[in-house]
Amino acid sequence: MSISLPREPDFDKAGGLVPAIAQDAANGQVLMMAWMNREAFQETLATGRAVYFSRSRNKLWRKGEESGHQQQVRQILIDCDADTVLLQVEQKGAACHEGYRTCFFREVGTDETKIVESRLVDPSDVYKK
Amino acid sequence: MSISLPREPDFDKAGGLVPAIAQDAANGQVLMMAWMNREAFQETLATGRAVYFSRSRNKLWRKGEESGHQQQVRQILIDCDADTVLLQVEQKGAACHEGYRTCFFREVGTDETKIVESRLVDPSDVYKK
Repeated sequence: MSISLPREPDFDKAGGLVPAIAQDAANGQVLMMAWMNREAFQETLATGRAVYFSRSRNKLWRKGEESGHQQQVRQILIDCDADTVLLQVEQKGAACHEGYRTCFFREVGTDETKIVESRLVDPSDVYKK
Repeated sequence: MSISLPREPDFDKAGGLVPAIAQDAANGQVLMMAWMNREAFQETLATGRAVYFSRSRNKLWRKGEESGHQQQVRQILIDCDADTVLLQVEQKGAACHEGYRTCFFREVGTDETKIVESRLVDPSDVYKK
């Protein structure tokens, strides 16, 4: 069985957008999941800065453009089906708009949901309304 | 700003399915990304075994039911928007149907795509046709 070596995700199969997971290259913490279209992926590859596609704003989202909390990309991996991207990044500041380093700051258990991370920054200091 | 403590992802907002990332609880390796509907999520929460929803087969996918490569779930996290799940798992064998421990075994660079992991098992030994 031979393994293909695609140059980019299969955006057509995925309907134009693929999930992109950002993981802290230094400590392995999963920081966030967002979406990429072909343009976002190619700009990420070319510049080494994480660029996503914002579904709510319907445009490219250069991570950190407002908050300053950019992601320097150390490695880009794609999965077996070529429909998911994993970025190994150096995260500046907090990945999450809620001010946590990771968006995954809540644990769901059978009895309760609880916050398991500490806030790094106050979101109101980062995002000016 | 108060943080909500939802008991499950917002499946309705997400159209019924949310991405679920599985990460090796021991070494932090991101193993795979799949999808969960409410039933898959609730069964995962109740049993402590990862259950996904297979979009191609249009049914619940109890990870490892064919391969034996199950995932024991140590922690379930949800992201800030409550539309992505992160599972911390103990992975038995290989997460990937291609026989690699992780589905993210290929690195995309500006010049080439290359395989950066080693196969654990031969898929033809695992999946009987």
